[in-house]
Amino acid sequence: MTSGVRHLVSIDDLSLAEIQALFEHAKRFSEDLRAWAHLCPGLISASLFYEPSTRTRLSFESAMQRLGGGVLTAAEMNSSSASKGESLADTVRVVGGSYADLIVLRHASEGAARLAAQYSPVPVINAGDGSHEHPTQTLCDLYNLWIERGRIDGIHVVLSGDLRYSRTIHSFVYALARFGANIVCVPLPGFELPAYVMQRLREEFGVEPTRADVSRLGELARECDAMYLTPQKPHQLSLFTDGKGLTLERVDALYMTRPQTERYTADELQRTRVVRLGKQELAAESLREAVVMHPLPRRDEISGDIDSDPRSIYFKQAARGVPIRMAILGVLLGRLDLGAPSSRIASSSYGVSRGGNPCANPSCISRTESRHVTPAYRLANRAPVRAYCWFCSQEIAHRLVGCSTTGIFHERDSSAARKIRPDHLVFLRDEAEALAQGFIPASRPTLTS
Amino acid sequence: MTSGVRHLVSIDDLSLAEIQALFEHAKRFSEDLRAWAHLCPGLISASLFYEPSTRTRLSFESAMQRLGGGVLTAAEMNSSSASKGESLADTVRVVGGSYADLIVLRHASEGAARLAAQYSPVPVINAGDGSHEHPTQTLCDLYNLWIERGRIDGIHVVLSGDLRYSRTIHSFVYALARFGANIVCVPLPGFELPAYVMQRLREEFGVEPTRADVSRLGELARECDAMYLTPQKPHQLSLFTDGKGLTLERVDALYMTRPQTERYTADELQRTRVVRLGKQELAAESLREAVVMHPLPRRDEISGDIDSDPRSIYFKQAARGVPIRMAILGVLLGRLDLGAPSSRIASSSYGVSRGGNPCANPSCISRTESRHVTPAYRLANRAPVRAYCWFCSQEIAHRLVGCSTTGIFHERDSSAARKIRPDHLVFLRDEAEALAQGFIPASRPTLTS
Amino acid sequence: MTSGVRHLVSIDDLSLAEIQALFEHAKRFSEDLRAWAHLCPGLISASLFYEPSTRTRLSFESAMQRLGGGVLTAAEMNSSSASKGESLADTVRVVGGSYADLIVLRHASEGAARLAAQYSPVPVINAGDGSHEHPTQTLCDLYNLWIERGRIDGIHVVLSGDLRYSRTIHSFVYALARFGANIVCVPLPGFELPAYVMQRLREEFGVEPTRADVSRLGELARECDAMYLTPQKPHQLSLFTDGKGLTLERVDALYMTRPQTERYTADELQRTRVVRLGKQELAAESLREAVVMHPLPRRDEISGDIDSDPRSIYFKQAARGVPIRMAILGVLLGRLDLGAPSSRIASSSYGVSRGGNPCANPSCISRTESRHVTPAYRLANRAPVRAYCWFCSQEIAHRLVGCSTTGIFHERDSSAARKIRPDHLVFLRDEAEALAQGFIPASRPTLTS
Repeated sequence: MTSGVRHLVSIDDLSLAEIQALFEHAKRFSEDLRAWAHLCPGLISASLFYEPSTRTRLSFESAMQRLGGGVLTAAEMNSSSASKGESLADTVRVVGGSYADLIVLRHASEGAARLAAQYSPVPVINAGDGSHEHPTQTLCDLYNLWIERGRIDGIHVVLSGDLRYSRTIHSFVYALARFGANIVCVPLPGFELPAYVMQRLREEFGVEPTRADVSRLGELARECDAMYLTPQKPHQLSLFTDGKGLTLERVDALYMTRPQTERYTADELQRTRVVRLGKQELAAESLREAVVMHPLPRRDEISGDIDSDPRSIYFKQAARGVPIRMAILGVLLGRLDLGAPSSRIASSSYGVSRGGNPCANPSCISRTESRHVTPAYRLANRAPVRAYCWFCSQEIAHRLVGCSTTGIFHERDSSAARKIRPDHLVFLRDEAEALAQGFIPASRPTLTS
Repeated sequence: MTSGVRHLVSIDDLSLAEIQALFEHAKRFSEDLRAWAHLCPGLISASLFYEPSTRTRLSFESAMQRLGGGVLTAAEMNSSSASKGESLADTVRVVGGSYADLIVLRHASEGAARLAAQYSPVPVINAGDGSHEHPTQTLCDLYNLWIERGRIDGIHVVLSGDLRYSRTIHSFVYALARFGANIVCVPLPGFELPAYVMQRLREEFGVEPTRADVSRLGELARECDAMYLTPQKPHQLSLFTDGKGLTLERVDALYMTRPQTERYTADELQRTRVVRLGKQELAAESLREAVVMHPLPRRDEISGDIDSDPRSIYFKQAARGVPIRMAILGVLLGRLDLGAPSSRIASSSYGVSRGGNPCANPSCISRTESRHVTPAYRLANRAPVRAYCWFCSQEIAHRLVGCSTTGIFHERDSSAARKIRPDHLVFLRDEAEALAQGFIPASRPTLTS
Repeated sequence: MTSGVRHLVSIDDLSLAEIQALFEHAKRFSEDLRAWAHLCPGLISASLFYEPSTRTRLSFESAMQRLGGGVLTAAEMNSSSASKGESLADTVRVVGGSYADLIVLRHASEGAARLAAQYSPVPVINAGDGSHEHPTQTLCDLYNLWIERGRIDGIHVVLSGDLRYSRTIHSFVYALARFGANIVCVPLPGFELPAYVMQRLREEFGVEPTRADVSRLGELARECDAMYLTPQKPHQLSLFTDGKGLTLERVDALYMTRPQTERYTADELQRTRVVRLGKQELAAESLREAVVMHPLPRRDEISGDIDSDPRSIYFKQAARGVPIRMAILGVLLGRLDLGAPSSRIASSSYGVSRGGNPCANPSCISRTESRHVTPAYRLANRAPVRAYCWFCSQEIAHRLVGCSTTGIFHERDSSAARKIRPDHLVFLRDEAEALAQGFIPASRPTLTS
């Protein structure tokens, strides 16, 4: 494992102050994208794409070239015979050994970029790892809000459509909460934010959900069970609420999403109703000053007849992906300084000290990649003991915990459990697994009676 | 739609004076291809190839790099999941938004580059749209004639082989006619120039076909029903003709074509006879000073044993594709000045004001792309009313025309038809369609009797 | 065919002095890979890959960009419709005509790079032609030995694993012999060096095999029938030998190979036993100072737990592929001088003057490519007459030879046979073929009795 190299695996790898500094750099770049070729001449980035994503790849390759750097392209790593059978850890060690000065990685397995960063001698940028994170997309979205609204803290952002399956939306929601934006969820019925997203919002960002009255959104919100998420204390909002819940007065941004139909069950496919944002929907009073955003590609959820509306910024939004990626590349390659404290919010990770891989996510890189992977986790809570897989961020399902030093196991919500040192923790589904791994139960007085 | 941006969708987008100026630039470049990297540093072209064409792509990418610019490559847009479901209009708006300063587009649908140019914020170059146009190939061929013969006007060019299915040949024929070259068609039996090509030659360029006696071409012309096409008045040729038609004395260039077997019917595949140009064929008296051209790749129509003959210029011809593309890129990117009047020969286009898409070509982009396409046409003739699809240039099949203002329909060759304003014209196949669309017939006095 | 252009088809295209000079350049480059962008600006290399090999391609493209040059990429020439039906000879004439200043060729057919070099107007680098040669890989391996050991002459290199099917190993063995290294073969049982490799070692490099006692290699050499190959006279080694054959005392380098399972018969697949180099194997006394090399990608033959051992240099080895390729590109592009005599060891080639293609290798380019190929050979021996195919280097199987001038055929080991001028030689399998081709037997006095 290499140290001293800075990666961008998750947006949590950057502090708020650093993100702010990135935005300032990006804004400066965007004044004339063609004026910065002196920043990275002689440097090379490699696009290692294990699944195709032409748009993301071109955006990074444009950014690198606009900085004067060179680009190596491996657009179809999965179909390459050269990559067959080679571990991801080996590939990044070779490519980062002298071929490239930075790796842009796209992979179908969650946590792949985290694994790559462990082994790569050069910075790794996560350009999408399964349905986990896509931090440059999230940074691009935040940057757009910042440019359009001048700030993110305190603004009102409406999220519309499929909020359940979209990676983009989940990462965006966490980031909005971190920045102190107010979020109004207007999901398609049945496609609400998942419970685990809500839980993380509560635990990490102190977000409290309130019912929202979104009648002023008109057609767009018909049939929706809207929800208002605010990182501020709910009582601060009392002025704006009435019996029906918080009433939405004025929206700063409306973020439309594409139905992730490729992940739907047959039942969900039937149930899905297309929300189509057109001239009529955009005429709602509360949207008068809202910018309309979309991560693109769109299908039918935004009508072409509002493309020329000045509030429709989705093409500008995509265009801004280049300056923001220029800033990220410049920073990771050591050619730009953020000049800001880099305190990360991500907690430390711990290797799993005994037993198999506790992560149950079948598309986690810790499961799909058999070599050079050491299962690891980060601690979310101590009472009860809750942990996330270090790679894919999914919660580890377990009822018991063992201590690798004492050899004793406990209920995860017991007082004994919370006293185990993190690097001695072993996650155990049930008693059968605990006993199979050689753990013994804690002596319980009541058992002797 | 964007304005003020110059595209190269069709060779008709350039005036003869501009093409001449392009040639001068290309000639200057070809003196040392490696001496022009100061022209486009900081600029990026994107190769968006919806069908593979390695040769064309490499030629453009070489030209851009020789100008000092950068290149983004999407060689297989069709198989990219990122592009799935995204409209062409959206893709070019994103890629042209900040990723690239120019788009080189290859697409299987006719008219795709025209559509892309409507939406792209940056110049679009048509690198082949179905079997429609490939203007840089045509410019390269013309440039070769100009370099080898010093002029194009008045020279004699023999076209041999499959003249029916080759896009390259049709575009080349129009361009030769426009430049005033004399064309001798020596087709394989059954693979003559199509009637619609002949009609356009007559209508737009005043070309009159004459029977030609090509006995002096020897083996090459055996069994051929040769034809002489001249943009000059036929009587000017009287000195050279006898009872058997115009006798071909001396050929300036012999343009060989590849049989487009992939488009043949089973019957045509059986009928096709390979014309193979070898030492014996090249010995024909009239070919003594002819240069031999071929758009490549060749199969068996040119024997390898004439590769070293100084008249065989097909490899030089391909090599000259780089300087001519450098000139085109330089002009469209605003780094080269043509200094010539840009009067285009293409007429204006009109949107279709009522009814469905009148274009019946199933591979026209107006049919294959469902979103962000507004059917349009350009007028070829007013008596009778004849029009071409604005995208694919195929003639619109209709017997009647309606006026969207009066709501009345007429026979297309009626005097009333020719008085309808172009932007009010509606193309109607027959009375049934006219009535279905709510048009009423013109009152005809005789009907009352 | 072009002349005056220097190619790298085989490592034999370089003299030992030139290789030494290449190493010096590479070493200089490796001090700071990013400091040499002034060497090749304005020059372009084209990667023409007829089979995918992402690692090799990226390594070349990185080297070219680090020299300041541009890159054209055709990563999947075989699936490109543009390349369909086009001969390799035509493709390199077009790409080398003005698109690129150098061609990096990867091809599935043996001898493809030799054919390409015959026609290309610009230098061709062989980046792997079937199971024939991959000279830059071999140069990279030699360069690593030179860097790690300070010399190659006289060092002891152990080759372990599948020595039968690996192209890399065969080329490496020849090169080691040429440089005067001592080679210890420790093959998996049944995967020894093929007889034809042994024969060439003997004939061209005077290598004599001796039995080797490799007991000091411990686990690694269990069950192996080890062999010691030395280009020095065996008696010079007498001091180190005892009754059991030469005893291996100290190894300078251990070269591990991947089982080429994709080429195994069902029987071989069953028989294969994986040699896994781990901490235990590396603890063998004789390996105390050995560097561990591997061409990568590895599968299970090297355990990840020795990755951090300072003797494990396989990632460094791969990284050194960039500076060595920078040196090769610089030399072939005329921007670096080797300043060394270029006497090649490869003998002259002769075209086959009569009859068909004598090469029986079905994956030789002379068989897979039907156009623009003239069968040719080089002479290995005159008594008996033995020859190799000029393209794939496989020995030509024949019992008789004919003289195209006299029309007489002879046994290949006859004194008459060895007097035939090489450019008059015709290879004949048997009498039937000789007679069919119109040859007559040499008059033999004993036949008249």
